[in-house]
Amino acid sequence: MKSDKNGVFIFDTTLRDGEQSPGFSMNLDEKIRFARQLERLGVDIIEAGFPVASEGDFASVQQIAREIRAPQIAALARTHLADIDRAWEAVKDAANPRIHTFISSSDIHLKYQLKKTREQVLKDARAAVEHACAYTKNVEFSAMDATRTDKSYLCEIVEAAIAAGATTVNIPDTVGYTMPDEFGELIAHLFQKVKNISDAVISVHCHNDLGMAVANSLSALKRGARQVECAVNGIGERAGNASLEEVVMALETRKDLFGLHTNIKTEHIYHSSRLLTDITGIPVQPNKAIVGVNAFAHESGIHQDGLIKEKTTYEIMTPQLVGVSDTHIVLGKHSGRHAIKEHIKRMGYNLTDEEIDKVFARFKELADIKKEIFDEDIEAIISDDVFRKPDKYKLIYLNVVSGNAAIPTATVQMEVDGEVIQDAGFGAGPVDATISAIRKITKTSHYLLRYAVNAITGGTDAQGIVTVQLRYNERSVAGRGADPDVLVASAKAYINALNRLESLKAHSRINVKGE
Amino acid sequence: MKSDKNGVFIFDTTLRDGEQSPGFSMNLDEKIRFARQLERLGVDIIEAGFPVASEGDFASVQQIAREIRAPQIAALARTHLADIDRAWEAVKDAANPRIHTFISSSDIHLKYQLKKTREQVLKDARAAVEHACAYTKNVEFSAMDATRTDKSYLCEIVEAAIAAGATTVNIPDTVGYTMPDEFGELIAHLFQKVKNISDAVISVHCHNDLGMAVANSLSALKRGARQVECAVNGIGERAGNASLEEVVMALETRKDLFGLHTNIKTEHIYHSSRLLTDITGIPVQPNKAIVGVNAFAHESGIHQDGLIKEKTTYEIMTPQLVGVSDTHIVLGKHSGRHAIKEHIKRMGYNLTDEEIDKVFARFKELADIKKEIFDEDIEAIISDDVFRKPDKYKLIYLNVVSGNAAIPTATVQMEVDGEVIQDAGFGAGPVDATISAIRKITKTSHYLLRYAVNAITGGTDAQGIVTVQLRYNERSVAGRGADPDVLVASAKAYINALNRLESLKAHSRINVKGE
Repeated sequence: MKSDKNGVFIFDTTLRDGEQSPGFSMNLDEKIRFARQLERLGVDIIEAGFPVASEGDFASVQQIAREIRAPQIAALARTHLADIDRAWEAVKDAANPRIHTFISSSDIHLKYQLKKTREQVLKDARAAVEHACAYTKNVEFSAMDATRTDKSYLCEIVEAAIAAGATTVNIPDTVGYTMPDEFGELIAHLFQKVKNISDAVISVHCHNDLGMAVANSLSALKRGARQVECAVNGIGERAGNASLEEVVMALETRKDLFGLHTNIKTEHIYHSSRLLTDITGIPVQPNKAIVGVNAFAHESGIHQDGLIKEKTTYEIMTPQLVGVSDTHIVLGKHSGRHAIKEHIKRMGYNLTDEEIDKVFARFKELADIKKEIFDEDIEAIISDDVFRKPDKYKLIYLNVVSGNAAIPTATVQMEVDGEVIQDAGFGAGPVDATISAIRKITKTSHYLLRYAVNAITGGTDAQGIVTVQLRYNERSVAGRGADPDVLVASAKAYINALNRLESLKAHSRINVKGE
Repeated sequence: MKSDKNGVFIFDTTLRDGEQSPGFSMNLDEKIRFARQLERLGVDIIEAGFPVASEGDFASVQQIAREIRAPQIAALARTHLADIDRAWEAVKDAANPRIHTFISSSDIHLKYQLKKTREQVLKDARAAVEHACAYTKNVEFSAMDATRTDKSYLCEIVEAAIAAGATTVNIPDTVGYTMPDEFGELIAHLFQKVKNISDAVISVHCHNDLGMAVANSLSALKRGARQVECAVNGIGERAGNASLEEVVMALETRKDLFGLHTNIKTEHIYHSSRLLTDITGIPVQPNKAIVGVNAFAHESGIHQDGLIKEKTTYEIMTPQLVGVSDTHIVLGKHSGRHAIKEHIKRMGYNLTDEEIDKVFARFKELADIKKEIFDEDIEAIISDDVFRKPDKYKLIYLNVVSGNAAIPTATVQMEVDGEVIQDAGFGAGPVDATISAIRKITKTSHYLLRYAVNAITGGTDAQGIVTVQLRYNERSVAGRGADPDVLVASAKAYINALNRLESLKAHSRINVKGE
């Protein structure tokens, strides 16, 4: 346990629960990049993945464990002993590895999904924790669907897990059903009834199906929980997890009420949120608390009037506190290599000289087209040109003729496994025509689930970030591309998705079942 | 008061607090359309606007009051008597009009913004309520920034407002600062100390700056409040208001806990959310509770396994309950006029024969390009072709040549006040080139704050909905356009924004101050 009784552990599950939700999948490099940002942000534990679920999950947990040294790195595992072995194998090289094992404890899950008795589940839980403890003392146990579990059975299983050696016990609201008072009472009940509870940190993991994830987490902290499982931008299964930034800023802004603190460096919150939307291509809505573009915008005349007279009339925290800067224009056409290098460093990237050369070359090209270069442009360049693996498919040439009086037509030239191929296509619009040509060249025909463009900065010469999502069997794969030309960005995004699909085929996720 | 003590009034402020937030402004026709949907949804009170703020606000409140008959229609007013007169003027034709008057009660607002003593504010509040009561018995009073107000002074002002005739008293958490327990205690305190409190309905209006708006609202309901002010998709100033759908579905799903009910027809929730994103062009994030595209998506293998075995293992409410249908393919190339007419009716629109002809003509054009026509396509057609006023600017012809080896060039022909003008432009990409040509023709140069495209359905031949936001003095104006060709949609959106700007200039919002 933390020596400081008012310290709250922030357990980030963006890369596990978040990453598994539709549209948010990331590749290995993106996961490492994001994990590095979580380290800068100061999270205590990174849940890096579910190693048994796929080769890709295993590889990324392993690499994060090897590269990210400050936070603890957790790997998820069912109570199957083979899952735990696999989790340990992935996470063992971490500076401070954690095995996180879970099993459902609610009667509804026991009856319909696990088809096991309470006694069997208790036995499984105990055996799993003991098995994990043979590898490390840092073991977390989760009683899945805890909020719909019989209370006295929940006490029993929590007590058994702690007795078996779990140093953290997590109480998840798996289906997002509970309410703050009710959840607080449940946590208080555990503290009252479980004899050995002071031997473990009590954790919570709340889902947002009824909009209560953050409120439930805070309510649990008031009653003695000291770890919150959460995700940047609140992403995760269905309506997502408790949002990291909301939990942290509520504790920070209402210190007077909670008397608790975290290790989060709040000034990195905004950049963490932006990096996630940049990687996944999925923006937060403008009215998202803390990190939405409107979160600090005061539009009504009355509020503006008040703010001019005195900031605190309408502002309970400053934008600077979470790292939103008023100005982020950085560089122009005449900025030199050194300035770029220094700037990239200040943005928190650690690039090699060769990588900086690549960024600089792309920067020069972009500066010829675009007057002002923002942090977001540099980020797009880095993610497009540095953090991208050699690909099967590559775009060489694109030409499009389109308009409301012509049949949109695209000519595309690509490299496929080193061979140059070209073809033309037409369609309902220029994007459709471009994709049609790419499909002919690559001989693919995946259904397009989603297509979105966001300009990453203001101005008509801004780069467009295109995100596409293709259907692949039961799953989906996303791709993104950035370019001042929305059609080039679309082609890049579609080709990126095809390349990801190739690597997905190589490391396909197995269909993990509850039992 | 409601005769039923467990009934909760839903007071929707999407058209007032929501509409005034950046990017969410709507024109008169859009407001009427949305108000009609709120009526179908079953909200008890629609806050239609702030009549003194602008001619446009006045006109839309007046028209909503005249056309929407089932819900009460509320108009906002400061405690200035002239504001109240104006509010009444706008709202008086409603079946059941309400005047909603407000003044700040916190010392920080009194000192810095209002520069008035508590005594003066109390006097203003009393006078305003009395003045409003001369017009109607349906008067609501709000003590702005109530959560940062001295408790005994808050009791005093609430008691005075009720004594003066207010039948609803609202306790806003204006800056989104409070926490559920604290807010619940404040409401309980009012019920204990304010002698005449049973003469009014106690209302709450919570902002989401710390992610607590819904939790705070529910906590207040547990302690006796019976009206919740909320907005569809949780939009509103900064991080927004309590989200209507989350408040309603929490009460519905946890009836066992709250024992409360609303008049909301939950099966209209999803369509209300979609209509709002369709009008404003701003989608909710995929993990938005209740209405996000992922809200009912179960991606993890374990959850999918459980769902197959038994729905309730991971589902606490059905998607059908909020109107998400599994399939919404509706029409194809061969559907006739009658089928379209019937379908439009089922979607909840009341169109004239002439309007249906327009929709049918556009439908036929679209069906030539696009294989399957979805509800969303029909909605886009209706909003594009039926609910759009005769415009100053009109697109006739667009041709674009673009690609990664050409300088993107666009040729545009437009009608400006009836005169045909054409010009060509080039730019960093085809969108930039198109906008450049439009700017030359229209002699405008507004800064582009935001540009986004969303495909409204799946498939490569889907229509793209483009949203743009232009800067206009201190404010912003949004435009949208739909077309299977993303460049045509971009041109339409930009021209739509220019047209809106013209009507904004005609009805500019005055700069309303706190005092």
